[in-house]
Amino acid sequence: MKKFEEKTVSTEKIFEGKVISLQVDVVELPDGNKSKREIIKHPGAVAIIAITAENKIIMVEQYRKAMDRSIVEIPAGKLEKGEEPVHTAVRELEEETGYESEWMEHITSFYTSPGFADEIVHLYFAHNLRKKENAAPCDEDEFVEVYELSLEEAELYMKEGRICDAKTAYAVQYLQLRKALEL
Amino acid sequence: MKKFEEKTVSTEKIFEGKVISLQVDVVELPDGNKSKREIIKHPGAVAIIAITAENKIIMVEQYRKAMDRSIVEIPAGKLEKGEEPVHTAVRELEEETGYESEWMEHITSFYTSPGFADEIVHLYFAHNLRKKENAAPCDEDEFVEVYELSLEEAELYMKEGRICDAKTAYAVQYLQLRKALEL
Repeated sequence: MKKFEEKTVSTEKIFEGKVISLQVDVVELPDGNKSKREIIKHPGAVAIIAITAENKIIMVEQYRKAMDRSIVEIPAGKLEKGEEPVHTAVRELEEETGYESEWMEHITSFYTSPGFADEIVHLYFAHNLRKKENAAPCDEDEFVEVYELSLEEAELYMKEGRICDAKTAYAVQYLQLRKALEL
Repeated sequence: MKKFEEKTVSTEKIFEGKVISLQVDVVELPDGNKSKREIIKHPGAVAIIAITAENKIIMVEQYRKAMDRSIVEIPAGKLEKGEEPVHTAVRELEEETGYESEWMEHITSFYTSPGFADEIVHLYFAHNLRKKENAAPCDEDEFVEVYELSLEEAELYMKEGRICDAKTAYAVQYLQLRKALEL
């Protein structure tokens, strides 16, 4: 798991933000030469494939400043310090969508941008959702619109480019595979 | 596509690197309040689901400094300035693996970390690969080992956590779906 390891020669901390931090490491390559690595540190996140009793997929549309546009995604959110990912998943689902689920299954976890960031997304599957009364609200700087999409609608949103991020593309394909396997 | 738009009040450039740059924008939220957004700019990338004549998947193991470990991924690489993604895909496949394909199909494109980065990955499907004589070498700071995996081996690598990034997880699921649909 450390094949071709790059040993750290020095670390320069460039930025410490609310969400991410940035450092530049000078590393020694396997052949002894030196190179620089630009590294983003991120607390990690969860995302939820959430299915209602009517077999609709819960999605949220929100504006993403990095791309200067709004996109439609599965519910997701950052891990708080010391928080178990499954608790983050329950909390974010409620805050972003007003839905709750008694049961969440961990499907997989993946790094989103291994070339420059350590962000990992823990992906959960929840079904038989029910609308919660008095659900906890979003963070004060979050504005989202909740959608309930059929799989066919989600496929159309992908074709149109309204769904266009890795975790949501993975989620749509996950549901396509479940359907193909008749699960 | 601009629902809940966050208007830029100011932009502070923090870092301009070889791969990424970082800026912090002060934005005006839809309710008139202000907030800060930490934004990574990235040139974009390609990744290739590459299948040999023997129906094996080409993967590369490489060390990723951000996670301090080596992982097994589908071949991928950054876009050069002004380069068409399909040309990047042909070039990276050859440089990283020594294989070439006459034909590449664009499957989809997705943002990897929409919460803080504009990185987009253009995903291609290539089959009937052939080994190229005198293939162009890797970048001088890239050290990779090439694998040819069956789908079952790739599924095992995922379970073991050796495959653990979003684009490669998507690729494995893509091949599972093709198999389930008997394509």
